[in-house]
Amino acid sequence: MSIQEKELQSVNIVNGVDVNHVVNAVEAFSENEELANFKFRLTNKWIDGGHNHSTITSCFGASQENTHDEPFELNSDVHPVFAGKDRGASPPEHFLNALASCLTTTLIYHAAVQGIKIHELESEIEGDIDFRGLLGVNDQVRKGYENIRVSFKVKTDSQNIDKLEELATFSPILDVARNGTNVDIIIEQK
Amino acid sequence: MSIQEKELQSVNIVNGVDVNHVVNAVEAFSENEELANFKFRLTNKWIDGGHNHSTITSCFGASQENTHDEPFELNSDVHPVFAGKDRGASPPEHFLNALASCLTTTLIYHAAVQGIKIHELESEIEGDIDFRGLLGVNDQVRKGYENIRVSFKVKTDSQNIDKLEELATFSPILDVARNGTNVDIIIEQK
Repeated sequence: MSIQEKELQSVNIVNGVDVNHVVNAVEAFSENEELANFKFRLTNKWIDGGHNHSTITSCFGASQENTHDEPFELNSDVHPVFAGKDRGASPPEHFLNALASCLTTTLIYHAAVQGIKIHELESEIEGDIDFRGLLGVNDQVRKGYENIRVSFKVKTDSQNIDKLEELATFSPILDVARNGTNVDIIIEQK
Repeated sequence: MSIQEKELQSVNIVNGVDVNHVVNAVEAFSENEELANFKFRLTNKWIDGGHNHSTITSCFGASQENTHDEPFELNSDVHPVFAGKDRGASPPEHFLNALASCLTTTLIYHAAVQGIKIHELESEIEGDIDFRGLLGVNDQVRKGYENIRVSFKVKTDSQNIDKLEELATFSPILDVARNGTNVDIIIEQK
């Protein structure tokens, strides 16, 4: 590789994403699938009533532990309409944040790799829960979201819009939100 | 109702939860199911690269708009191992926070209504994602979490532990995580 090629490679930033970094990851994951195995994790501690607190210090991936410079701290609580004290977003709101942020990141990264420039991107997300399920009022009512609607407004060349819908389907959290996954729960006495 | 009964009712706090408030909600939702229809929502805005930002101002429920005193602001980003700048928890981490916090709140609230006193409760949650799915390296690999493990340690009377596993299954986000739901996505030009 010539010096010019190396320099060109070093500045291949699209949508703020270092495309070469991502392309190199794709190549590395193709050659060694163990590198692609990521483990995300956190600890959560109940504070009082509807209030609990998560701490996120690191994730495992690319065959190494990847520590955050500072742990991320997230509060969750319940609105007073439901006997909480509103000291943080509620669990259903945190879920919508996970889904919206995952769709956004997936769109931006995949678009970057394909050379699709995104100038602005914002979304609104809304979901419906019938709380009779959670409260056990009616066991025919499901407990979780019955429907979720996501609406994106994207500033990009008009020819790109149709491609973006396909790219969104690569989102890990969209996959779980649509298809579910295995969740094992163990409860032990402290 | 005598004054004594009213006073007793007004101080029925278990696990920091106002049990009468919850019981009244159950009764109200039984009599008028429209009250139980909640809509959660947020707006998300892409900032740059893997960084985006959600704002949560209110939810609809109990036939009214329920505004947070201050909007909740949540940042999402990607770790540098994956070409991000780590300005917030990543979408898969936000998802685990939503699930852990929802399980915790569900356990605490249902336990409170049943008179089960919880003295301490904490959890660890971990999930596995093979990023070859997200990156389109192998279309046989699923994009989302393949497995999620949640481990609770609870300080309570030992006789309560077995009941808690059943109570956890009322969690709305556990329902979505295990069973999936309908997600509609619209992408339009801005």
